[in-house]
Amino acid sequence: MCEFAKPSAECSMWTQETGRLIDKARAEGLTLAWDRLAKQTPQCNFCEMGLSCAKCVMGPCRIIPGLDRDKGVCGANADLTVARNFGRFVAGGSAAHSDHGRDLVEVLYEIGCGKTTAYEIRDEAKLRKLAEEFGLKSDGDVKAVAKAVAERLFLDYSSLSPGLAFLKRLPKARLELWDKLAITPRGIDREPVEMLHRTHMGVDCDPVSLCLHAARTSLSDGWGGSMAGTEISDVIFGVPSPNKTKVNLGVLKTDMVNILVHGHSPVVSEMILAAAADKEILAEAKKAGAAGINIAGLCCTGNELLMRRGVPLAGNHMMTELTIVTGAVEAIVADYQCIMPSLVNIAQCYHTKFVTTSDKGHFPGAERFHFTPENARELAGQVVRLAVEAFKKRDPNKVFIPVEPVEIMSGFSNEAILGALGGTPNPLIEAIKAGTVRGAVGIVGCNNPKLKQDHHHVALAQELIKKDILVLVTGCATSAMGKAGLLVPEGADQAGEKLASLCRTLGIPPVLHVGSCVDNSRIIQLCAVLANAIGVDISALPVAASAPEWYSEKAAAIGLYAVATGITTHLGLPPLILGSPLVTNLAVAGLNDVVGACFIVEPDPVKAGQLLDAHIAAKRQALGLQP
Amino acid sequence: MCEFAKPSAECSMWTQETGRLIDKARAEGLTLAWDRLAKQTPQCNFCEMGLSCAKCVMGPCRIIPGLDRDKGVCGANADLTVARNFGRFVAGGSAAHSDHGRDLVEVLYEIGCGKTTAYEIRDEAKLRKLAEEFGLKSDGDVKAVAKAVAERLFLDYSSLSPGLAFLKRLPKARLELWDKLAITPRGIDREPVEMLHRTHMGVDCDPVSLCLHAARTSLSDGWGGSMAGTEISDVIFGVPSPNKTKVNLGVLKTDMVNILVHGHSPVVSEMILAAAADKEILAEAKKAGAAGINIAGLCCTGNELLMRRGVPLAGNHMMTELTIVTGAVEAIVADYQCIMPSLVNIAQCYHTKFVTTSDKGHFPGAERFHFTPENARELAGQVVRLAVEAFKKRDPNKVFIPVEPVEIMSGFSNEAILGALGGTPNPLIEAIKAGTVRGAVGIVGCNNPKLKQDHHHVALAQELIKKDILVLVTGCATSAMGKAGLLVPEGADQAGEKLASLCRTLGIPPVLHVGSCVDNSRIIQLCAVLANAIGVDISALPVAASAPEWYSEKAAAIGLYAVATGITTHLGLPPLILGSPLVTNLAVAGLNDVVGACFIVEPDPVKAGQLLDAHIAAKRQALGLQP
Repeated sequence: MCEFAKPSAECSMWTQETGRLIDKARAEGLTLAWDRLAKQTPQCNFCEMGLSCAKCVMGPCRIIPGLDRDKGVCGANADLTVARNFGRFVAGGSAAHSDHGRDLVEVLYEIGCGKTTAYEIRDEAKLRKLAEEFGLKSDGDVKAVAKAVAERLFLDYSSLSPGLAFLKRLPKARLELWDKLAITPRGIDREPVEMLHRTHMGVDCDPVSLCLHAARTSLSDGWGGSMAGTEISDVIFGVPSPNKTKVNLGVLKTDMVNILVHGHSPVVSEMILAAAADKEILAEAKKAGAAGINIAGLCCTGNELLMRRGVPLAGNHMMTELTIVTGAVEAIVADYQCIMPSLVNIAQCYHTKFVTTSDKGHFPGAERFHFTPENARELAGQVVRLAVEAFKKRDPNKVFIPVEPVEIMSGFSNEAILGALGGTPNPLIEAIKAGTVRGAVGIVGCNNPKLKQDHHHVALAQELIKKDILVLVTGCATSAMGKAGLLVPEGADQAGEKLASLCRTLGIPPVLHVGSCVDNSRIIQLCAVLANAIGVDISALPVAASAPEWYSEKAAAIGLYAVATGITTHLGLPPLILGSPLVTNLAVAGLNDVVGACFIVEPDPVKAGQLLDAHIAAKRQALGLQP
Repeated sequence: MCEFAKPSAECSMWTQETGRLIDKARAEGLTLAWDRLAKQTPQCNFCEMGLSCAKCVMGPCRIIPGLDRDKGVCGANADLTVARNFGRFVAGGSAAHSDHGRDLVEVLYEIGCGKTTAYEIRDEAKLRKLAEEFGLKSDGDVKAVAKAVAERLFLDYSSLSPGLAFLKRLPKARLELWDKLAITPRGIDREPVEMLHRTHMGVDCDPVSLCLHAARTSLSDGWGGSMAGTEISDVIFGVPSPNKTKVNLGVLKTDMVNILVHGHSPVVSEMILAAAADKEILAEAKKAGAAGINIAGLCCTGNELLMRRGVPLAGNHMMTELTIVTGAVEAIVADYQCIMPSLVNIAQCYHTKFVTTSDKGHFPGAERFHFTPENARELAGQVVRLAVEAFKKRDPNKVFIPVEPVEIMSGFSNEAILGALGGTPNPLIEAIKAGTVRGAVGIVGCNNPKLKQDHHHVALAQELIKKDILVLVTGCATSAMGKAGLLVPEGADQAGEKLASLCRTLGIPPVLHVGSCVDNSRIIQLCAVLANAIGVDISALPVAASAPEWYSEKAAAIGLYAVATGITTHLGLPPLILGSPLVTNLAVAGLNDVVGACFIVEPDPVKAGQLLDAHIAAKRQALGLQP
């Protein structure tokens, strides 16, 4: 019997919070992701190794290297088949992030054109700074500046970009390397489209060339679409600054209308938040017997609201089904990405309304609201009212909230971090030189039912901070860190002496929450700031990244843009590439010679921590610092 | 034993020309696509049904509908899994065509900017007409017009398109229907990127919504990228007009340097053609003992040169490996798409040089030449010289050209067809009304080793022309028709009485070659011209399309844009969707209610002909014409 098919009490794969709700779900006859994984196990070995191909109807083919069936009908061998699949995998993730970024640019454009009153520029200074950075007119009418910045970014999505606007942030050495390798991204949409083209039968048949284009595609995400997503979200909704809030399922309130915003975009969720403060609707909620309306976040939509508004975070990817099982959720308001299709079925077993808001994210059986910048305010009110109505149907006997919430700090944008250091990275560089902060690791990404939930995030973070390595956290790793007490200044108690002392002096946690998964662009940008200030390439910095519990195509894109940017990246699970020795060796070693960084695949988080520590020590030594 | 694993003489899967070369290949110890298919058979049933998913590492998953394993780890059921896979399949095809189109727009832009002398505007009139159609300044300096037209099309690739330029060609009713369904394509790159986004875990989880976006994506190809490819190729290389040439492996010359251009783009192949006429290089060829330099085409690069220059066509997709087996080919010069990875290995068994020319299409072991509009002329000379050198190493004892070439006519662009009719579609409409031409069917696309080579194309065409239905042919179907004698006026002997008499009067074949696979845009454009002239929607026309031997993602995109344009389309093999009753029913029936056309899947070409005949009869009747 596989681990996650065991009765809850015997299974070591989840936390107590999770286990209690799994027991409730099972008692109520529900099937969860862990159950579906158990039923899907063993998984297809060909697909797992990247060795199956269904990209044409001469196939589908399954490659067995070294045997008689070592080539597909077209003649593709194992290396090519794996590279084609990996290329599309990365393109899927890049496209997702970049299409999310486009939505923000569109809202900015609509603001600039005066077509929406629902949205406004909350951070005019950041907007004008971006305009200046892009070489545009940065003074004068704010709408005109918004329109010009949006148009510049639209240009970067097109085939006519004069060079992605954000690339100027990079050290010259890195840009020259990319040019030499022909992996400088040319257009945010162009690279994933070309990847689709290259992976069509009979186009790019060189696995190395495909892997390089996968890197280029991921860079069009990291230094293109994702960065546009982060920067323009900041312009429209405000640059995050440190705030205190709470995390875990305990943020749900038994006496309030609970609305969970889920997905990745702040565009709709910010409107839901505003509508929940509407006095008329609040009065309706009270009339329905509720003490108020409680908005909490899931996944990265949750991270967006957490960073900028201190909205509590109910949980991460593997908690999304279980939030409904609490019986205390009136509505899940979903935008897009990582929203399990199962949620709508589980919601139907409760009084919970499952609401979709994006025209590119429909779910059969959901309540559909097609939000646009024009109707957003009005529709947000309708959605919140729907939740208030649902509250009347809540069955108090089915409500079970298994834990008390935990305090966390959030809001560590680069502006906040650098601002606290007096506007320059120099104090941070001095701390690195002195070894107070030996280095930094970004722990990012999802969780995966194959791994013990949150454990890998937390164990790795603990291992790193113990060694005076600062951790930056984004995405679904956030609530794991929060629950483990690492996102409060008191978390310093778990850190090494030097880092702990610095945290105490500054009143900050040893693990800094820097945002959602598109906000990994903040991390690479910070690396560029540091590298430029020191006068080295990014690959020389004592930094690394890690996605210990990743599951998604986006995570693969993030990992690859980090590596291509020069940041060695740890993965807790391998991508679907093991069927190709060539691609696997390139990923875990060869890339070092190409881009000065590579992947480390290590399932054990403590060992991973040791490897990343050794990596950082080596980088320090190369810079002439104490390891 | 599966059919294609039998000894050549016993196998009914190929023609005599093919069988003879397969015997030679086997005697020489080579493995061909048919052999690899035999080894891959039985193929994975999950992949074949569209029921496997490797889009995240919670999976890979295999769905068994109706059983305990009826959902993936994320909760996706069979319908969703199939729709996601089909969505990406169509996106792959659309992206390939559109990225090819982009290359032509880029060359036009370089001409406009004066950055290339290798390329020029061969059809200034068409360029100015396009400028006028797009509402741009069409008089004055030709380079300025070229730049403006290119920029307008680049805009259509972007997120800032004011509406794809070519959409104005469509009947109003069709555009209104697309708007109602929200499937009007917004940007050529945007739709495949959004499809990648939608098919990421947890975005679009509605199979119907995904299928509609697949339609939108395909329309961004048909009325966007492909149409740009065709129109701009015409501008740069000339609008095709009727010409006579030859087809099959007999076009190879035992006493000449044989160079085969393979792939899909005219950009490089036109330069190779020019270089082969260079007196200096010809002298070198003669010095090497050759009577001259013979350029012949393969696949759609072949179709491009066939249409515009009357360059003979050596063969289609399933002939590409066998051309090398003749032992008479000095070089295969490849651009991109449908170039079997096996070719480079087979070439290595002969004196044949395998040359790649595109930076997005590399093959390990190939001779790499990275063509750009700036260096194209120079590199083309180097490539032709490489072939001349290879000629010296040809082993005459290994040469075997099994057939004599067959005559064909080609070059039937819309301009040529309408020009021959006096510049208006009225004579054609009158012929349709009178029943001289009862209707028209475009037979398009690839071949597939699962089917008897060329047989399905030819049998279907014969069935249709017998019933006075005019056939238009593109892509790999072309050489099949040519070999069967259908591409010469004498082919009229195989047609019904009325069509035959018309063909004899006009001196044209009953099957008109209209181009390569991007040139299917010519067919949908001609349908729009007819529909506008009659004053009906395209779905009311007595027309249809068919891809009897298709294999590629591009063919699926073509089929879907034809159907979404209102043209019922026959497929000789089903797409990988049979695991979903919902998606399958939508494809073969439901789409009729949505877009007024649907797919017909029928492996038997004679039965398919009867079904298409019945479809055309019904459309005629609805228009008040004799069926």
